[in-house]
Amino acid sequence: MSAVSVVSPAELIHTMGARARAAGYRMARLSTAVKVGALHAMADAIEGAAEYLETENAKDLAGASALTKAAQDRLRLTPKVIASMVKAVREIAALPDPIGALEDVRVRPNGLRIGHMRSPLGVIGIIYESRPNVTADAGALCLMSGNAVILRGGSEAFHSNTALAKLMNDAGAKAGLPPDAIQLVPTTDREAVGAMLKARQFIDVIIPRGGKSLVERVSRESEIPVIKHLDGNCTVYVDEGADLAAAISIVVNSKASRPSACNSAETLLIHRSEADAFLPKVARALLSAGVELRACEASRAIVPAMKPATEEDWYAEYLELILAVKIVDSFEDAVTFINKYGSHHTEAILTRDHARAMEFLGAVDSACVHINASTRFSDGGEYGLGAEIGISTDKLHARGPMGLRELTNAKWVVFGNGQIRE
Amino acid sequence: MSAVSVVSPAELIHTMGARARAAGYRMARLSTAVKVGALHAMADAIEGAAEYLETENAKDLAGASALTKAAQDRLRLTPKVIASMVKAVREIAALPDPIGALEDVRVRPNGLRIGHMRSPLGVIGIIYESRPNVTADAGALCLMSGNAVILRGGSEAFHSNTALAKLMNDAGAKAGLPPDAIQLVPTTDREAVGAMLKARQFIDVIIPRGGKSLVERVSRESEIPVIKHLDGNCTVYVDEGADLAAAISIVVNSKASRPSACNSAETLLIHRSEADAFLPKVARALLSAGVELRACEASRAIVPAMKPATEEDWYAEYLELILAVKIVDSFEDAVTFINKYGSHHTEAILTRDHARAMEFLGAVDSACVHINASTRFSDGGEYGLGAEIGISTDKLHARGPMGLRELTNAKWVVFGNGQIRE
Repeated sequence: MSAVSVVSPAELIHTMGARARAAGYRMARLSTAVKVGALHAMADAIEGAAEYLETENAKDLAGASALTKAAQDRLRLTPKVIASMVKAVREIAALPDPIGALEDVRVRPNGLRIGHMRSPLGVIGIIYESRPNVTADAGALCLMSGNAVILRGGSEAFHSNTALAKLMNDAGAKAGLPPDAIQLVPTTDREAVGAMLKARQFIDVIIPRGGKSLVERVSRESEIPVIKHLDGNCTVYVDEGADLAAAISIVVNSKASRPSACNSAETLLIHRSEADAFLPKVARALLSAGVELRACEASRAIVPAMKPATEEDWYAEYLELILAVKIVDSFEDAVTFINKYGSHHTEAILTRDHARAMEFLGAVDSACVHINASTRFSDGGEYGLGAEIGISTDKLHARGPMGLRELTNAKWVVFGNGQIRE
Repeated sequence: MSAVSVVSPAELIHTMGARARAAGYRMARLSTAVKVGALHAMADAIEGAAEYLETENAKDLAGASALTKAAQDRLRLTPKVIASMVKAVREIAALPDPIGALEDVRVRPNGLRIGHMRSPLGVIGIIYESRPNVTADAGALCLMSGNAVILRGGSEAFHSNTALAKLMNDAGAKAGLPPDAIQLVPTTDREAVGAMLKARQFIDVIIPRGGKSLVERVSRESEIPVIKHLDGNCTVYVDEGADLAAAISIVVNSKASRPSACNSAETLLIHRSEADAFLPKVARALLSAGVELRACEASRAIVPAMKPATEEDWYAEYLELILAVKIVDSFEDAVTFINKYGSHHTEAILTRDHARAMEFLGAVDSACVHINASTRFSDGGEYGLGAEIGISTDKLHARGPMGLRELTNAKWVVFGNGQIRE
């Protein structure tokens, strides 16, 4: 890529975009065997180059002293991280190829057979922070779904990403991939991100992977459709007549099993009729799991050890061991509360009542709606997608965890034998 | 709506948006019976108020002398147009309700049943030109798919649209709909369109229905996802060994049966091996159907009566009786040509070769790909959707003709019995 290093970011992205578009047309037609072979070749290459990757990664770490400890951890390529990247690529290679699948092909009265065929989106732009594993993971998912990809990783991971992309491309080219199947933006110039977000003729969708500020910047600036993952302010609602023993276990699991995850619960709603029996027990379990509780006045009248909640608490995505607690008067109040204060990510109802369980599914405007199960299951792996390119909090194209299928669209296909329209 | 007439367009849209959001939550939970009942009540109301509609329409026509004759025709509500609106609403009422359908629900090893449930998008904004029938049609489609809708019609149709919206709302309210299910922007102020395109918290998707300049303006300005219908530069490719008699009939039908339609062919590609036999015959048929032919030099060497084509002709969406004609050396050249010059709307291959027919489906990056059938079938009605909210030339969410299903998304639903995540 040295020939492009003297051009402007806009020219660079233009060149890369044109190459990606051409590569995308070839990718759309690759056989499953070629894609699977390329993925295993990439996994082998990464596996065989652990030392090289660690050397390049050390250069990044040397320049990353300003990062938080947690960010440095995410940047670091240990043998264990490398092994897990290799495993992820092989797992993606084992998934069913979504491309070319025919769906809902029906016969029309004039004899035409008309239906859908799964096709790649085309060219995907991925913008992410300094986590080199995303390079391997996103590259592999885009490849398996027949898409060309332009990767723009965080500048602190530049050497690691460059090394990974080189390993994957060299292995891919030998296995029959177009040379521009997986391109990494070869500069840390931030203007290159802006140029990507304007390259409408070359990039079909932008997927930002990272924290809220990255996602918000990308959505605001992009002229290309963005699939974004914003807040996870998830709620568990304990309905009248719920199984309270099961409810305690689900509430504690939803909140405390991994509080930094977007699918962790941030709010607990309790039907008034269960509050006296349930609140003292669940509060004891949560407090002993280290959870700070911020509650409405009615709740505090039952368990005074809880702190008072403010209006902001109902909107908050804490991502730590804090839970907002509120008593509601009815199922309808719970639904209204969730649709008003929630972030439309994942909600759970704990109930024994069949009618209310089923009503909850349609009444709550969220990407993922759980009946009698922890919010923490809201995840591509747990849902059985095998691998996840991200989680969508949008309402178009895909909601919730996105796997290979969500990197495709459905084109219409028509099988005729000479039909003309009257 | 007189109370809102003194506020700014932004305040007006804010008020309407908040009402639409609340209505949307109720719409999502309506039974099919209520929706169907409301649609028939609306159809009855329109049918019973033909005189009132014609009176209001006459006010619009009186102020529309600056419009072209064709635009005045589209604006005019004749008894025939009113009858066809009524019929369209009843046909939408007869379609299967997409909301609540469960899809692909599978059992996970931990006993969770996980799958998709079809849900409304929420609030849809429709921006259209002066065709009052869109008011009835789009309103009915959004209602049947459980969405609230904010309609903004062309200012020349303001009286007609206001009358139609009033009839539909009054009938809908009596039949159990939320009062703000179908809202028409009650002003012709153009700033209201700008305000709609910014109302991200209230509107989930914008669908522009109209000419290219409207669609382009809306896409450029919108901060909300837009599903847009741009050019239809459709191509018919006559492959080596095609049935030439069938090909003549399909080419003439694709071009000449309704040249103003976006699914009409604008380019004809002919495999070199068929050119000598096919070109004179198809040219004769097209010329006698009144089609002007603009051809490559190789084609003109066979049929000198054709005009020379320029580079621009390969990109052109004529929407009239003109066809660009080119000889290609191979299937691959045809594919490359289509992906470069086409608008990714609808393409047809005419072939007897099974392998090339199947390869064409994946190789051509278009919303609709036809084998041995006229491009003119690319249409919601012909595809069996029953009714069409528009045609998408985008690659996300929906491609090609969009029916009720394309006004929904798939939320994840999880049926558990107490599961927690390890």
